Amino acid sequence: MSDANALEALIQALRRLPGVGVKSAQRMAFHLLQHDRPGAQTLSYALANAAQAIQHCERCHTFTEATVCATCLDERRDASKLCVVETPADQSALERTGAYKGLYFVLMGKLSPLDGVGPHDIGLKKLFDRALDGTVQEVILATNFTAEGEATAHVISEGLKARGLHLTRLARGVPVGSELEYVDLGTIAHALVDRR
Amino acid sequence: MSDANALEALIQALRRLPGVGVKSAQRMAFHLLQHDRPGAQTLSYALANAAQAIQHCERCHTFTEATVCATCLDERRDASKLCVVETPADQSALERTGAYKGLYFVLMGKLSPLDGVGPHDIGLKKLFDRALDGTVQEVILATNFTAEGEATAHVISEGLKARGLHLTRLARGVPVGSELEYVDLGTIAHALVDRR
Repeated sequence: MSDANALEALIQALRRLPGVGVKSAQRMAFHLLQHDRPGAQTLSYALANAAQAIQHCERCHTFTEATVCATCLDERRDASKLCVVETPADQSALERTGAYKGLYFVLMGKLSPLDGVGPHDIGLKKLFDRALDGTVQEVILATNFTAEGEATAHVISEGLKARGLHLTRLARGVPVGSELEYVDLGTIAHALVDRR
Repeated sequence: MSDANALEALIQALRRLPGVGVKSAQRMAFHLLQHDRPGAQTLSYALANAAQAIQHCERCHTFTEATVCATCLDERRDASKLCVVETPADQSALERTGAYKGLYFVLMGKLSPLDGVGPHDIGLKKLFDRALDGTVQEVILATNFTAEGEATAHVISEGLKARGLHLTRLARGVPVGSELEYVDLGTIAHALVDRR
């Protein structure tokens, strides 16, 4: 297949997607070319359009096509609460619960010293400015309950707690619908400590 | 994220890739937008270019940008041998062995009655015309050793054996480097029958 340069270029480009190796990229390329050329065109257009149109919201830093995203502009939301999440996917999970009506700040990452991601890389400065706008009274730390997420939450609370803001963290505990026998011990220990 | 239409469109488009669900598509979209916008542009261009430029070789049916692929045009190859494979990936595997110097016919699929893929869908007519061009003397059936691959090989050999062509199938047997203890019984049985 020495003359298949367009094919080779496509396979190499697909490999830039996270979690896609040579075999998957080959399978994707063959599938699109053999069975779904309209899909290839659609994906091509969606990629170009997204890369060109999508930027970060000026206020909450999430992906948006506007200067300020629809969530931040929504006046029915409680501007005194600011929920800090790692990614738009996390924000979307919180939104789907319907249990939160405040605003968000999306870090677009987490502190990860081992990968060289420091406070500057995830825009903590921008978060601090946003949290100290005078309207925000409570900052809810909803970073993940992983080592990096916990470290990120810790650094943020260290930075903010001297400024008179009410800082909270999502509750840790036993997941809904689970049986104690199968829950990991760390979770049970936390649920005991945080019992109410 | 109600205003994130370009993002939603990108996620939906990524889901058309085989093996990519909602979560993977979201992760891919976020990765490209957050960490690899040049990658998104590259992939966009590669997709559009491939979908536009790549067609099927007139002679062997593989993907190529030309009318006839480089392999078919290579005069040093033995035109009396025609190796039938399911996909360009299979062809590429055979090529990498360096053990075959004949020509190929790429089915771009396999017979699969359960999925509604019949002889017409994988271009058997085209294969028969190609095999009966007068130059081809041996047809090597190198479809996969799966149920569908075997059925495909069977149908091809039924269609061609009355026409005076020498029909062969890749040898079945114990893989190089394997220990009998760990080889499946079907393979050992075939290796016994086909012993030489």
